[in-house]
Amino acid sequence: MALRVAVDAMGGDAAPAVVVEGALQALDAAPERLEVQLYGPRAIVEAELEKRRALGREGLLLSDAPDVIGMAESPATAVKTKLRSSIHLGLQAVARGEADAFASAGNTGAVMAAALFILGRLPEVARPSVVGFFPTTRGRCLVLDIGTNVDCKPEHLLQFARMGVVFVERVWQVERPVVGLLNVGEEPGKGNALTKAAYELLQAAPDLNFRGNVEGRDLMHHAADVVVCDGFVGNVMLKVGESMVTAFVEMLRQEMQARGIDAVQQRQVLGLLRGVLRRFDYEEYGGAPLLGVNGAVVIGHGSSSARAIARMILAAAELVEQDVVRSIAEAFHPA
Amino acid sequence: MALRVAVDAMGGDAAPAVVVEGALQALDAAPERLEVQLYGPRAIVEAELEKRRALGREGLLLSDAPDVIGMAESPATAVKTKLRSSIHLGLQAVARGEADAFASAGNTGAVMAAALFILGRLPEVARPSVVGFFPTTRGRCLVLDIGTNVDCKPEHLLQFARMGVVFVERVWQVERPVVGLLNVGEEPGKGNALTKAAYELLQAAPDLNFRGNVEGRDLMHHAADVVVCDGFVGNVMLKVGESMVTAFVEMLRQEMQARGIDAVQQRQVLGLLRGVLRRFDYEEYGGAPLLGVNGAVVIGHGSSSARAIARMILAAAELVEQDVVRSIAEAFHPA
Repeated sequence: MALRVAVDAMGGDAAPAVVVEGALQALDAAPERLEVQLYGPRAIVEAELEKRRALGREGLLLSDAPDVIGMAESPATAVKTKLRSSIHLGLQAVARGEADAFASAGNTGAVMAAALFILGRLPEVARPSVVGFFPTTRGRCLVLDIGTNVDCKPEHLLQFARMGVVFVERVWQVERPVVGLLNVGEEPGKGNALTKAAYELLQAAPDLNFRGNVEGRDLMHHAADVVVCDGFVGNVMLKVGESMVTAFVEMLRQEMQARGIDAVQQRQVLGLLRGVLRRFDYEEYGGAPLLGVNGAVVIGHGSSSARAIARMILAAAELVEQDVVRSIAEAFHPA
Repeated sequence: MALRVAVDAMGGDAAPAVVVEGALQALDAAPERLEVQLYGPRAIVEAELEKRRALGREGLLLSDAPDVIGMAESPATAVKTKLRSSIHLGLQAVARGEADAFASAGNTGAVMAAALFILGRLPEVARPSVVGFFPTTRGRCLVLDIGTNVDCKPEHLLQFARMGVVFVERVWQVERPVVGLLNVGEEPGKGNALTKAAYELLQAAPDLNFRGNVEGRDLMHHAADVVVCDGFVGNVMLKVGESMVTAFVEMLRQEMQARGIDAVQQRQVLGLLRGVLRRFDYEEYGGAPLLGVNGAVVIGHGSSSARAIARMILAAAELVEQDVVRSIAEAFHPA
């Protein structure tokens, strides 16, 4: 059976060209199992397909969605007024069972607001969450929340843990994922009001493999597979991480300049760095799933390249294949 | 006039040997202006001095403090029961005007609790704060709070800004330091309940050069000289930053191994990195000032080397020389 992914053709800084290109790359990578449904203004998307001689390509469908939500538009307004946008119609296709997943590199706030409105939350999930991937020396860990929920209650962190575990089990195929609570110290009893209370809840949850508190410094050394925190902290942490990498490269350049290292050697060292940087590259992951809504949704980076779009679409297909949404629902309603 | 720094000879993982060694290095670096007062059990500290033939060295005093507070001891209990510790007696010397500053690489919680108890807060300072230094591509910025205050109110962030500005003005000699509020987005109105309210306060403060919100990714690109946040976020961020650097080096090693790069070249690349890593090295800074108490206090890293101890002592002397404590008091009571 095909995995039908509805794709926001107008989502992203370089949409629709890059999205169309990425959709074709995704189909090349997984031709048999994938069906891509492009949502966007028909004439515009058709023109992009024609440019690439891809009109009528097998596995590629086009659905007209005349309204366009800009990257910087207010989500609240856009979601209420642009009811025929690619975001609305793509999500509605999922809600109606005409698509299995929705993927967008568009306006994150609008995608989330529309997903909540159109798909709704899974029963008992108070706060759906966009997750982040954090590179570690042993691979990567899942961090949630990373910005969707900037003011959290302890029970939200418990729910994040539960959702994150399902994702890591199903998609990364990790058995009994280790859960850590991001905190300022390892000992129980450390932390702010939120983490102290969340610790108790996590500790008492029989379904979780809870390791306890995890400090910022342990994260990259893979202290846990799933790290939970409120979205404010998670967002700051991920952004600092991203910027450290670019700053690090800039500082290394400065250092090489200062030491008078020649251009050839500079290129060699930077080439070496590129291998390391790839681990920090969101393009490898394509997009972050929005967990906790009643449907498979992946949100990509606004500056996604075609390659990142292709990965985002494949990530959405994988959510479906691994039955992540139903597994989360079950984790909240143990049989 | 000499700058008299009371030093906790028993503070740090490798105390007292490393502290005594560091004190001597500090005196070597600033022989004329510095007086170091070592606080610790007399016999133990004397033995260390004797080993180094430094007993009776000019500028070096020894005061008996028989109680020892362990690095892992509960601050609350230690502060109440070990009244003749190096931490208590050193801080009391400052309170009595027998020393100008106190420096310790010991139990951070105990130093802070004792400093609050013995020196007290400056008038109107609700929350004294340990500050952190964050390397940027243009130097470094000051981040506060970094763990002293894990649950903050908006007015605390305003006070952090005020104290941080004084430090950066006086010690780093930056004119009209730019203040940023660490947040999840740049636009006003972004953030959690705390940062939204803090934004309003910072914006309305006529004495501050407030730039607005600063995202995690802008920090390393020197978006501000003084970045304020609650201590939970600051602590996580600094620790992630530290660990990213070590993880980065480990990943680079892995990459070189994988590419079969020979040992000589590996050493060359790692040598290059060392120049960059130095910017992230706390030893360069020595210790973090505790701002907002009625006295000059610097807290060093528990794992401080002799070199870091020396820098910590010199940093304490600089707080005195730049009259930071009085300047903070004045910032809270404009003439």
